[in-house]
This record gives sequence, structure tokens and C-alpha cells, in this order.
Amino acid sequence: MNDRLARLTLMRLAEPGDTAMGALVALRGPQAAVALVREGAADADLTRWFADTHGRPAGGPGPCDEDSGRYGRGSDRGGGGAGVPDGVSGSVSGAGGGRRAGWDGRLAARFDRMVASWAARLRTADPERDLAEGERIGARLVIPGDAEWPSQLDDLGDSRPHALWLHGDADLRFSCLRSVAVVGSRAATPYGTHVAAELGAGLGERGWGVVSGGAYGIDGAAHRGALACEAPTVVVLACGADVAYPSAHQQLFAAVRAQGVLVSESPMGAHPTRPRFLVRNRLIAALSRSTVVVEAAVRSGALNTAGHAVVLNRQLAAVPGPVTSDASAGCHRLIRQGKAVCVTGAEEVIELAGTMGTDLAPEARGPVLSRDRLDPESRKVVEAMPTRIGMGPATIAVAAGVDLETVLSCLGGLAAAGYVERVSQGWRLRADRPFGG
Amino acid sequence: MNDRLARLTLMRLAEPGDTAMGALVALRGPQAAVALVREGAADADLTRWFADTHGRPAGGPGPCDEDSGRYGRGSDRGGGGAGVPDGVSGSVSGAGGGRRAGWDGRLAARFDRMVASWAARLRTADPERDLAEGERIGARLVIPGDAEWPSQLDDLGDSRPHALWLHGDADLRFSCLRSVAVVGSRAATPYGTHVAAELGAGLGERGWGVVSGGAYGIDGAAHRGALACEAPTVVVLACGADVAYPSAHQQLFAAVRAQGVLVSESPMGAHPTRPRFLVRNRLIAALSRSTVVVEAAVRSGALNTAGHAVVLNRQLAAVPGPVTSDASAGCHRLIRQGKAVCVTGAEEVIELAGTMGTDLAPEARGPVLSRDRLDPESRKVVEAMPTRIGMGPATIAVAAGVDLETVLSCLGGLAAAGYVERVSQGWRLRADRPFGG
Repeated sequence: MNDRLARLTLMRLAEPGDTAMGALVALRGPQAAVALVREGAADADLTRWFADTHGRPAGGPGPCDEDSGRYGRGSDRGGGGAGVPDGVSGSVSGAGGGRRAGWDGRLAARFDRMVASWAARLRTADPERDLAEGERIGARLVIPGDAEWPSQLDDLGDSRPHALWLHGDADLRFSCLRSVAVVGSRAATPYGTHVAAELGAGLGERGWGVVSGGAYGIDGAAHRGALACEAPTVVVLACGADVAYPSAHQQLFAAVRAQGVLVSESPMGAHPTRPRFLVRNRLIAALSRSTVVVEAAVRSGALNTAGHAVVLNRQLAAVPGPVTSDASAGCHRLIRQGKAVCVTGAEEVIELAGTMGTDLAPEARGPVLSRDRLDPESRKVVEAMPTRIGMGPATIAVAAGVDLETVLSCLGGLAAAGYVERVSQGWRLRADRPFGG
Repeated sequence: MNDRLARLTLMRLAEPGDTAMGALVALRGPQAAVALVREGAADADLTRWFADTHGRPAGGPGPCDEDSGRYGRGSDRGGGGAGVPDGVSGSVSGAGGGRRAGWDGRLAARFDRMVASWAARLRTADPERDLAEGERIGARLVIPGDAEWPSQLDDLGDSRPHALWLHGDADLRFSCLRSVAVVGSRAATPYGTHVAAELGAGLGERGWGVVSGGAYGIDGAAHRGALACEAPTVVVLACGADVAYPSAHQQLFAAVRAQGVLVSESPMGAHPTRPRFLVRNRLIAALSRSTVVVEAAVRSGALNTAGHAVVLNRQLAAVPGPVTSDASAGCHRLIRQGKAVCVTGAEEVIELAGTMGTDLAPEARGPVLSRDRLDPESRKVVEAMPTRIGMGPATIAVAAGVDLETVLSCLGGLAAAGYVERVSQGWRLRADRPFGG
């Protein structure tokens, strides 16, 4: 069995983001991992590894804070997927005495159960059929080491996918090189979808790719904005590449295949489940240089993606909205907590995601009124000028709080510039004030 | 002439926020300042003071950055009001040789001009008449040292007002003790006025006062929100207490007089001018513990108030809005620049303005779904359950990625809790899913 077939098998055996399987593959390689599951024979090396990575320190199980989403080797997680709470935290004793040899009865039982849950799926795994099915629909398999493999996924550590199914004309690695993840609620408001589409288009216009989840609401609007600018866009699916959920987005997915690429780490035919959506979000965050949350309620899958972006040291941004809209409450919380930068448009997103100093956004500025260009004394005189009945220079001086000499020297220049005019009783502002206000 | 009458005279002679006059009063007291203007005789002490505070270092006039709004004694400002650019920066040589004795011809001329611009207003000053006029309309004069004088105005340094006219039943000092300035555009959107009114009411409900400028738009809405909750509210006018601009707000001002207080640092009859609005803003910022900007275009007077709040070390907050609304662009810029904290409601404003640790806002949270309370393995089983046709435990185990033993141990509990049910072909989710989703 070659590397590709072994990785296709692993996609069937373990749920996406299963860090125990990821660690095993990192330790032994994909073929050996499949063989272990098939034969169930653990050698001394493997049991020591499992005890080291899954045994708990003396004093009982520690707090299980999987929501913080730590990645990387040597984590103390069980076989759960990334972002999915550990299912076995209560079942390990880790009592000091029992870990003498790094291995005790309960740990051994736990190892056997983990391998058994993978083995149960071995019967239905048929990598050759998966490969044929992918070929039939026109998808391609990429694995680590391939030219199209996006190496930024290595940041995921043990939760890195074993392989990816790609379906579409764009090159995934190239599309993600300068890309931003635009994510948000499925139950988006018209404001949210408008902003997401503008953001997608604004990023596309400036040569940046848009990565998202292809869902209803914000995701779909962001993809469509990018497509409208003929920019590559990447849909990361939570199901098999041939399933392409939601089915009402078939037209969108067809357009993405023509101009971008669909990505799936699930085997062919896999249906989207809630854990798969959450685990999929880590790929969206990992593929792009920064993540922007457009609309998210305080409890939203988009905040899960935001959390992955933070853990992965990607820049995080959020678009504010009306404080009266629950759909923006999650964005405001991220900004308040200092986790996300407040952004109002594509230029500000690029400033964040881009190269320091070369992708700066122009600062929002108002118009410069011509009055601003006056010297300070002339401005004081203008502010004190009457609008209807004329006034003498001495009265103007008192009103403006400057001396008479200053008023006399200013009036000539102000008249020449069209600010004031001489009338029968003295001086007044010109009615057609060219300086506004 | 007593202290009160002298200060009433100073209100007539110098524009509000005139730091030169403020420094003179700090140096000699109000009576002596009036006498100096009246007699024009500067002694050696005074000329040295003026040279020290107004002479420029050798090498010509330095950059005149009045927009940064520095306060306090010994500033190198001319006679301009706070926030109004220095009108005389070009007229001082400050050449090294000429400042041998700290006083040269140009500096002397400048001193004389400054005193002359005050003296020109002396003729029209009549403090006794002002006092009578105040009494007539029912206003009262408070000066530093009075019980009702808000001592936080001392933070303004040389731009501290000489005295304040108050008109209304509430005690100013007490009303401002726990108060927040709510400011924003006159050209507010319905969203902005809604949020300002909610904020005013929310602050009032929680025992906090609302300080603002009584203008159209955000200011008026914030005052009205506070009034609706029978909370004290403070209107800081940019004109005389008897003028009460804008005139369309007479009903609002009447309500404020009954329940709060109108404040003016201008003499009776003074009309609002643009510089007076800007200078007035420093009082709004100084009176309150923090300033909240509700809606502000990138060029807005409310941002001037925000700048004063920063200079005065008051907390600054801004309410976000739609990024598609120019009326919120100034707020977003403040948040992006890290100058303002993003706030979405009264509780968050109070957390900022209140005492650390005792006025914490509850964090925005979503509902907790009952599914969240399941143990992790049961949750995996629930996620993998079929919804229509029943499935056997072994199939469920493969779908959930757990072993058979776990499925068998979970199903009983899930059935008892109402999540799943046994049907002829095996197990499935209950149709009336009590856990939502």
C-alpha cells in the first residue's frame, strides 16, 4: 500500500482532526499507522509513546480545556477531534504508582479502545474505490509533499489533515498564498451579506483570495463577491467533495470549481455533522493569512474559526455593526476583548493580513474646508463676522477678541479671497460663502 | 470689586478657554487681572512671566500643535482659546540674542496687543448688570471654592473657566460625581439617536448622570433618555445661560432645568460661535468620568470632545455602527486607533467609567444548549444518530468513531434523558428533539 492509499484509508478510519491518529502518523508514517489499526499489535515503543502523550500527571485528570484549541505534538488529548472535547478524560487514573513503567491496565485498555474504534471502520474503507470515485467526479487528491499542498497546514500539528480532496481549476497553494478567511453567521442580516460581498469583492480586486466555508449567509456572500471580481476563492467543505453541502449552493459550488477550488479533508460521500463543521473551521483559519468575522452572534460557529485563527497566530479582525443587532454581538465582543482588530473595509483587512508597511490602508479622513487653510487670526475674524448687517472693524475686533490692527490687516486678504465683503455699514460675510458652513 | 464681580468681568474680557488670561489669574488672582487690563501697567514680574511662558526658544517659533490640546500652567500658548490655534505664533522672534533680559521689543508689543484686545471689551463689561440679569432669569453663579463648584475642572489648568452660570434645580457637583458624557453628531441617523437615548436611559436607570451639549441629534437624544428615567442631566452650553441655543430645544432645556442643570461659562447674552463650541467641549469632557461617542463622522465636533477626554485622562469609549454608515466612521476610527474602547450598551460604559472591579458589565453570552451538558462521548453518539430510520449500536459506533461498548453504555442514558428512542430497526434521534438544532 503506497502513501496515497494509506492516507486515503486514514481519512476513513479517523475523524478529521483526530490528534491521536495525527500523532501516530507523525511517529510512524501513514502505512505503519494503517498496519497498526489492522493488526492491533502495539510494541513497547508505541505503548511508551501513548503513555507519554495520554497519561495524566499524578493527582488525577487535569482540567480538560479543549476549547482553547491547542495544536501540536505531545498534547495530552485523547482521540477526539480538534475542537471537540476529549471523550476520555475521566477514564485515566494516572496515579503516581501505576505509571512506574509508563503503562498500566487502564491506559492499556484506553489504547485498545482507541485502536478498536478505528478498526471498526476498517471494514468499510476501500481506498481504491475512493480514488476511482474522486477521478469520476474530477477531483484530485493532494498529500503533504505534493506541489499543491499548502504547507501552512503544518501549523496544525497533530490535527493536520492526512490528505485533501480538491475539486476545481485553481491551484490551492497559490490561491491561499495571499488570502483572507471571511466568515460569519449563516443567519446573516442583509447588512452582513452586503458587507461580506463588498469585502469579498474588495479583496478580490486587490489580488487577495477569499477562503470560507461555502455556507448560507456570510460565507456565500463572501465567495460571490470574490467570484464577481474573477478572483480565486476557496470553499472548505465539512463533508465529502462529492457531497457539497448545502445542496442549494450547487450553482455557487459550480462557479467556485470553475474559478477557484473546493477543499475537503473528509472521505468521499461523508456527510456534514456538527463536529465536522467545527473541525473544518481550523482548516479555514490555517489556510489563510488572517480571518475576518463579518457577523456572528455571541454563540456562532464563526467564533470557533476565530478561536482557531488566534491559536494559529493568524491575524483576527471583526467588522462592527449596529449594537442593536444580535448578529453583530459576537464581533463586538471580539473587539472589546482585544482579540480582533476592528475593520471597516477590504483595505483595512489587507493592511492587517499584508506585509507590514507595504499594505497600509489610507486613514479615514473628512474633507478639508477652505476655512482650515486660513491663518489663525484671519479665522478668528471670519468666525466673528456678521452675516447680514455690516460691522465696523473696531466692533469686529471686540467680537473676535483680537486688536484693531489685526482686524484691519486681515480684512483686505479675506475680501480678496472672497470670504468677506464691504457693505454700506461696514463689513460682513459674503452670502455665497465659498468656505461652507 | 470682590472675587465674584472680578470673575464676571473676566468672563466678558477673555474668550472661554483663553489660557493666557487663565495663567494671569492663576498668577495674580482675578481682581489683579482685571486691574492690569484696566490700567495696562505691567511690572517687571509680569513681563518676566510673559517672557517665560510666551517667549519661544532660539531658532524661531516651534511647531504650533494646539490640536493636541495640552492643558496646564506654563504652556507656550498665546492668547487663543483652548482648542483654537494660537493666533500669534508668527509674531515672536525669540532670537537668542534678543532674549538676553527675557524681554525684547517684539515680545513687549505682543504683550501690549494681548492686553489691548482684553481692554477693548472692558467698556462693555458690567458685572453688576450681569449679576442682576442672572438673578432675573433664575440662574446662579458658581466660582472656584463654592460648594457646588466641580473640582474636576481644575484638571483643565489655565483653561479652567473663571466662573460658571448654572440654571436648573440639580446640584452640578453632585450630578457630575458619577456621570458620563454622551456626545455625537448633530446630523445623527435614527440608529444613532436610538442608541443615544437608550444609553442615556440605561445610565440614568443605574444612577449615572448624563453630560452633553444640548445640540440636535445625539446630544438631545442622550439628554432625553436620562430625563425619561428621572435622572439628572447636565447641558453644557456654548452660549450665555439666557440664550440657550438651539432655540428649538427650549422644551428640552426647560425639562433639564426642572430635573438637571444648564451650564455656561459664557457671559449672559453671548451667542454661540464655532470656536465657543469647540472650547465648550473641553468642559463636557472635564465634568464627566468618561466620554462616549455615539455617532461621529470622521470630521465631527464630537471627536474634538473625544480628544479633550484623552488629554484629560478620562476614559474614552465609542459605539460602533454599520460600516456602511459615514455617521459611524469617526467611532470606528477611534476604536481602530486604540483611543476608544468599543462599547455596546450602558453596562459596558459604566464598567469603563466606574470603579475598577465593582462596576463590571456581564459578558455577552449565548444560550446554553442542553446538548452542551452531555458528556463528550454521549455527545459524539448523539451527533452520529440517524434521524429517521433506526440504526444498530455497531453502526452507530462506526459513525460516531467510538467503540461499541461506549455506544451501549451511552444509549440508555440518552434514552432516559429523551434524546434518542428505540424503534424497530434499532435506535434513532427523537423527533421532538428537546436539545434543539
